[in-house]
Amino acid sequence: MHKVDVAVGTDLFEENEKIARANADRFERAGVTSIDLMGAIGSGKTLLIEKIADRLLGTQRVGVIVGDVTGDSDYRRIREHHVPVVNINTGKECHLDAHLIEHALDDLDLDSLDVLFVENIGNLVCPADFMLGCDRRGVVISVTEGDDMVKKHPLIFQTADFIVVNKIDLAEHMGVDVDSIIADIEEIAPKKYFLTDARHDEGVDELVQWLLQKNE
Amino acid sequence: MHKVDVAVGTDLFEENEKIARANADRFERAGVTSIDLMGAIGSGKTLLIEKIADRLLGTQRVGVIVGDVTGDSDYRRIREHHVPVVNINTGKECHLDAHLIEHALDDLDLDSLDVLFVENIGNLVCPADFMLGCDRRGVVISVTEGDDMVKKHPLIFQTADFIVVNKIDLAEHMGVDVDSIIADIEEIAPKKYFLTDARHDEGVDELVQWLLQKNE
Repeated sequence: MHKVDVAVGTDLFEENEKIARANADRFERAGVTSIDLMGAIGSGKTLLIEKIADRLLGTQRVGVIVGDVTGDSDYRRIREHHVPVVNINTGKECHLDAHLIEHALDDLDLDSLDVLFVENIGNLVCPADFMLGCDRRGVVISVTEGDDMVKKHPLIFQTADFIVVNKIDLAEHMGVDVDSIIADIEEIAPKKYFLTDARHDEGVDELVQWLLQKNE
Repeated sequence: MHKVDVAVGTDLFEENEKIARANADRFERAGVTSIDLMGAIGSGKTLLIEKIADRLLGTQRVGVIVGDVTGDSDYRRIREHHVPVVNINTGKECHLDAHLIEHALDDLDLDSLDVLFVENIGNLVCPADFMLGCDRRGVVISVTEGDDMVKKHPLIFQTADFIVVNKIDLAEHMGVDVDSIIADIEEIAPKKYFLTDARHDEGVDELVQWLLQKNE
């Protein structure tokens, strides 16, 4: 990560955009709705994908690409839900990029899928800059991270299409004011948001319904 | 961030190491114990520094450098504790580096300090690679992030000198097994660790005592 080994003048972002557009074309040709799910470590991205996959079972063919610095614990969790999963270990990279997705797609049969979730590396900074070519991007935050996440990391929320505020059952215990998070979303990055407690299945149906609606 | 604009062959890490050594020299000359506090977003780094600063008030002269992508909310929180604080906004960078610290030190009178805390950017990936020149590095994790943080991000724990497992009051409610976190620490990155609930002042005294001990 951060180690530089490219010709002077090469723009990493430009290169990434080019591959992202190619990924987007592949998704479109296969008729797959692809969703890049970003969010900090521990915000609950994996559990959310598990809950969504369970709900879509039987009506939509779901696939998942899981990004993690190391290990395959999330991959193994999602595999339990009987959906095709590809694990990407970035080694030391702090975000997924379009090129990593391009390679992961070689291990997935896109034509046999309707919806593809990409779980990005847990990090509210770096993934913001690297489009993957997905149809939409969501950010998951947990109330346990405090109530100033949107203020502190405006960019990732601004580049997203939807926001999930998760673990709302813990807000009171944490002394976190969900209303102030919502106020920040409306001021800094106004867009569709969902309040969820994925562990207790709160708010997940609304999110799924919205994702499917956009999928039609 | 990640945008490349350097001569071919320049090694960012080597350059960083050089400046880190210069920072370390400045700390040593001024007799300041410096602590780089890393950890994910929302793990409780700021509150921990606030609690420690309060405890050291009157016996040790504390200064703080606060790193954040944007905004000054942490800076303002710490300033309330009547200690000198410098705010670093990295813009889009996902970690502090030695050069940013070098600049921040120009705004601090090191000779009037005994202990300097550096609050790194909330991120369990990138800061691991960038030494700042501090005497020691700690990682703060919160049980609300789940129990697999150490497994998923071994490097940052391995490069640290101590680990703080925070928000332990929430472990039961979250269904997180603190013992399994400890087992991971002992297996993957065996070193001094502290169990804290900074909000309710649990475990903070032990951490302060240890930091002071090492300071003697």
